[in-house]
Amino acid sequence: MTDATHPLEAPENLEALKKEAALRAVALVQSGQRVGLGTGSTAKYAIEELGRKIAAGELSGVVGVSTSEASEALARAVGISTEPLDPRPLDIAIDGADEIAPNLDLVKGLGGALVREKVTEAQARRLIIIADHTKLVTRLGEKAPLPIEILQFGFLSTVERLREFLPGGRLRMNGARNYVTDNGNFIFDAQLPEGFDARELERRIKGTLGVVDTGLFLGMAERAFVAAPGGVQELVR
Amino acid sequence: MTDATHPLEAPENLEALKKEAALRAVALVQSGQRVGLGTGSTAKYAIEELGRKIAAGELSGVVGVSTSEASEALARAVGISTEPLDPRPLDIAIDGADEIAPNLDLVKGLGGALVREKVTEAQARRLIIIADHTKLVTRLGEKAPLPIEILQFGFLSTVERLREFLPGGRLRMNGARNYVTDNGNFIFDAQLPEGFDARELERRIKGTLGVVDTGLFLGMAERAFVAAPGGVQELVR
Repeated sequence: MTDATHPLEAPENLEALKKEAALRAVALVQSGQRVGLGTGSTAKYAIEELGRKIAAGELSGVVGVSTSEASEALARAVGISTEPLDPRPLDIAIDGADEIAPNLDLVKGLGGALVREKVTEAQARRLIIIADHTKLVTRLGEKAPLPIEILQFGFLSTVERLREFLPGGRLRMNGARNYVTDNGNFIFDAQLPEGFDARELERRIKGTLGVVDTGLFLGMAERAFVAAPGGVQELVR
Repeated sequence: MTDATHPLEAPENLEALKKEAALRAVALVQSGQRVGLGTGSTAKYAIEELGRKIAAGELSGVVGVSTSEASEALARAVGISTEPLDPRPLDIAIDGADEIAPNLDLVKGLGGALVREKVTEAQARRLIIIADHTKLVTRLGEKAPLPIEILQFGFLSTVERLREFLPGGRLRMNGARNYVTDNGNFIFDAQLPEGFDARELERRIKGTLGVVDTGLFLGMAERAFVAAPGGVQELVR
């Protein structure tokens, strides 16, 4: 019960610590770098801090590459030059996550931008995660479902194929309609079984007819700054 | 030189033989069956014949499931009842192919409907191919490129990833613009190397970030009716 009343767990303090985590991540960005800009409430703090450092002259020649329309709009609003993704590597990318395993394998995509984030961040030399401590898990799937992006065409059949080995889960809805991603696809939120091999599961899901990609980010994150009661923890893979 | 002047190789005779191949395929359809309707110039003959048999009372209770808007429109025009794809198996599907290997492995998708065809035909208990003899190859990739459907987002990076193991190939164009599939994606037409293992290649391509699916149809076709000089050949896997 003492934990629940600890002043650092009050929501306003957690927000302050998430912001501090974002500052720690942005401190890794150097002038002249191409930076992948994540999506979501924590990534927002990083984009704002990057804009502040550019405006203050602490960084120059930085180019942002956005993972969503929302990040693109925010980046422009805070004065970050942006470019669309092209085949050149990104020096660094900063983003949130929905679950963080001890080895920094991630589940991402509750926000719906999983494929764009994955395609962008796969090109980053360094992927830095910022999150709060509620995202730390001992195994992926412990708290959050795994988002799987699937084609609209034949989606019911694709869901049946997925349910053969992922029986728990449901199509993501947006009110009474199916949720549609930026790529025009649907999302199946799968409940992960216990004791799976993440790489084997990733291969099996991605190999399923009708699947575009999954929210598993395996072996991609280099480090994470995690806002926790008492301060910001730095985790390294 | 005698071959070139053989009357059965004249284009009008090849068309007549393609039509005969379609008739042979449609002869396998029984009343009450759910039938996958392929896309393209040869599949068109099968849809027309199916409509004729329904109108003539030779078949009843047949339901078509179309793989493209074009097939859907033709099916309705010739009086075939249609339904969208759902998770129930199809009894049979009839479609063309761009290349047919001796074991009836196929390359499909020059028409651009590869993913819809694959999703639909994967549910068919029997997949029957109709084609002319120019589609027969000793190895896949001998004559045609392999179409690979890829996401628009980050497509240049996806192409780079594919070119690491498929160096020959190019993005499909539609005039000055990229060709866009029914699913809103692009197509990379890859030149297949010699001596590859088809299943391993399929796994590798499908496992590539940004890839939606490929035009490889492996172990799917049960038989093929092939219009050739001298008549229609029936090939069974």
